[in-house]
Amino acid sequence: MRHDHITSTKQLSRGDIEAILDRASDIAADPSAYADRQEDALLGLLFFEPSTRTKMSFSAAIKRLGGDIVDMGPVDSSSVKKGESLADTARVVEGYADALVMRHPSEGSAQMASEYVDVPLINAGDGAGQHPTQTLLDLYTIRESAGLDGLTIGIMGDLKYGRTVHSLAQALTNFDASQHFVSPESLKLPRNVRYDLHEEGSSIKEHTDLETILPSLDVLYVTRIQEERFPDESEYRAVAGEYQIDADLLSAAKDDLTVMHPLPRVDEIAYDVDETSHAKYFEQAHNGVPVRMALLDTLLEGEP
Amino acid sequence: MRHDHITSTKQLSRGDIEAILDRASDIAADPSAYADRQEDALLGLLFFEPSTRTKMSFSAAIKRLGGDIVDMGPVDSSSVKKGESLADTARVVEGYADALVMRHPSEGSAQMASEYVDVPLINAGDGAGQHPTQTLLDLYTIRESAGLDGLTIGIMGDLKYGRTVHSLAQALTNFDASQHFVSPESLKLPRNVRYDLHEEGSSIKEHTDLETILPSLDVLYVTRIQEERFPDESEYRAVAGEYQIDADLLSAAKDDLTVMHPLPRVDEIAYDVDETSHAKYFEQAHNGVPVRMALLDTLLEGEP
Amino acid sequence: MRHDHITSTKQLSRGDIEAILDRASDIAADPSAYADRQEDALLGLLFFEPSTRTKMSFSAAIKRLGGDIVDMGPVDSSSVKKGESLADTARVVEGYADALVMRHPSEGSAQMASEYVDVPLINAGDGAGQHPTQTLLDLYTIRESAGLDGLTIGIMGDLKYGRTVHSLAQALTNFDASQHFVSPESLKLPRNVRYDLHEEGSSIKEHTDLETILPSLDVLYVTRIQEERFPDESEYRAVAGEYQIDADLLSAAKDDLTVMHPLPRVDEIAYDVDETSHAKYFEQAHNGVPVRMALLDTLLEGEP
Repeated sequence: MRHDHITSTKQLSRGDIEAILDRASDIAADPSAYADRQEDALLGLLFFEPSTRTKMSFSAAIKRLGGDIVDMGPVDSSSVKKGESLADTARVVEGYADALVMRHPSEGSAQMASEYVDVPLINAGDGAGQHPTQTLLDLYTIRESAGLDGLTIGIMGDLKYGRTVHSLAQALTNFDASQHFVSPESLKLPRNVRYDLHEEGSSIKEHTDLETILPSLDVLYVTRIQEERFPDESEYRAVAGEYQIDADLLSAAKDDLTVMHPLPRVDEIAYDVDETSHAKYFEQAHNGVPVRMALLDTLLEGEP
Repeated sequence: MRHDHITSTKQLSRGDIEAILDRASDIAADPSAYADRQEDALLGLLFFEPSTRTKMSFSAAIKRLGGDIVDMGPVDSSSVKKGESLADTARVVEGYADALVMRHPSEGSAQMASEYVDVPLINAGDGAGQHPTQTLLDLYTIRESAGLDGLTIGIMGDLKYGRTVHSLAQALTNFDASQHFVSPESLKLPRNVRYDLHEEGSSIKEHTDLETILPSLDVLYVTRIQEERFPDESEYRAVAGEYQIDADLLSAAKDDLTVMHPLPRVDEIAYDVDETSHAKYFEQAHNGVPVRMALLDTLLEGEP
Repeated sequence: MRHDHITSTKQLSRGDIEAILDRASDIAADPSAYADRQEDALLGLLFFEPSTRTKMSFSAAIKRLGGDIVDMGPVDSSSVKKGESLADTARVVEGYADALVMRHPSEGSAQMASEYVDVPLINAGDGAGQHPTQTLLDLYTIRESAGLDGLTIGIMGDLKYGRTVHSLAQALTNFDASQHFVSPESLKLPRNVRYDLHEEGSSIKEHTDLETILPSLDVLYVTRIQEERFPDESEYRAVAGEYQIDADLLSAAKDDLTVMHPLPRVDEIAYDVDETSHAKYFEQAHNGVPVRMALLDTLLEGEP
């Protein structure tokens, strides 16, 4: 892997992905072996919009490697308010840290900022754009529970606006995976995403209901359907209800079906699923730590 | 002590309390002996409402043990805003830390959250409910300055709404302490708290003014009377003025009277008291660090 | 240097300044030699108003020394909201840390707070007052690039309200420096600052345009002219435009002219200057880390 910025899933080859996931497996197996790996490293956190789990997960990751954070804090207390350009902010802050993690509401912002800095920069979400570490932890979770090759996966919910889903689908084209997309007609995969998947030679199918394909799935990846995507509440309620799962519905699935969700969930997965062996969404969130440790360790290794 | 969640003072026996205070004394006597005790530990901070001193004190405590924090940050930047349940938040965050500290505006929330997580969870205040580490640092301060057995203590101010006061009074029933409660009629101890204290066989007395009992006190614990408890400002002013102390008033007290306050104070203790040897409220605040170190060290010791 | 509070540039002698800058040079030359110098130190951050770069820079500095921070967080989540006095806040917080850094909107606040605490307190900006570590990093940058003695410096922009400029000008009176002040008539140095500089025997000159003196300068220190200083926008636009620099304008300067700016900039330095060898403003910001490391290391050394 080139030891520089990680701004998009698209820049990662199958080999890059496997190297990171292998290191994450190593870390998960023996975290203490990595406890002092990056003990002099400071990770700069530039979160231009709120985030709980991503920020905590990166903080935990660098600290589990023995390093520490330098946090810009909320944007309303930053120089950004004084009209500073993103490029200037990035150039100042790189002097305080050995690597940067950036979340920003504008698509393309991480890529742009990365062109101004010498330390590695990781995109932790740029609006409707990319969030590569989410994809890596999704892949890690799939690999641990079902394997990435020979996989049959269902991806359900809001497939139109879901950044997480687009990145995951794209990354899965590196592996031998059959992808089934399940959504209401109005929230289908965008044409360009579908086109890209076909171009990659990926085997994908689209459905409007889960039932027919559920029995064949190894993994069911559920995402939230947001009310604000619909013209009125009644239309939302009618549609959303059909894309919720519960323990009863899962009785038609394979015994070893893995249910994933990028969280937070609202009601698209009923609480009774939590008690089943299918539920892997909390583990999936926890996997963010070893995966981000692996990525940070890889990027910082390349530093002088 | 059972090595698990600390959500209420009521779960702590006299033996539990003494074990924690003994360890806190050890730490205060030789902090350097504890400087690397928990060097791989991460403490997750879940503050669903603002707090300065409690959060700083817990941060200092885990860092003085060689560990570090992972902070959720202010609640308006958290997944809670997206409708996530408290149970889900707790289950995600436990994957980032070895123990959790939680403050939340709803009574019972810490207890509820603790049922969903495997790592130790400490309640740092749940609305009108409990705040056990405040009680432990109060007990530590009393023990250091006056001793917990054979103690005569006056507790003054808002005894109706004061969570701090209820917990302290309850905890003192484990020791041979005479408790005198001093407040305006409208802010007396709630009936259920008084009942519980009687049930424990505790010796308590209630007063509307301080003067008659002041000379007999070893400790005077002052709390703030908040204006918002009164129907109008003039009524507040009339009452509050009678429950303020100054150096002049304390001339009637024992030479070694200890004056305590959970802070922040506004004007219930005049600044001229700061200069007297009675004033122990800043020391009391500082005692939060060794006491929380002792508690964290005890809880984390039990971890694999 | 006396090992106590640093609240104003005025308290620093030439010898004090040189000792700090020498240590900062040492640190910059071999940071790893300082990586564990203060490994048990906690630095309390009391930022009563927002700041990005100063707070991040102090955080990086103490962490690069092996220590850590305890952060009060934003003021709206602090006890200050409950009416606590600044003196009380300082006295509580000193129990959580080995040194304090304080930013506050009121001039004189850091000095006042320092009178209540025993641990070293560093002023990180008190309204229109002082910000001594900004001055130290400015001096360090000048010394590294042009030398402090025999220096010819131009200081341009808002000289009336600029706290940074007043402190730097005052500190430069300790050295053999010719100071040229360039500003619109309405934003000239205040009479009292000019008077103090004359009293110190400093060689200063005032100008309304840059061109005549530009060729003689070793350093050009640019500051922002804020729109809110002008009665209307058109007046602002007319004036501000004359105090902006670009690469073309700098072709009349010495080859080794150093351009500095306390940042954030808006448009007073065109982006094409960034590509020239004159641009030292990002390096200047980065120098905050070794300079603050040197100051913290010096102050903490004096601690028991």
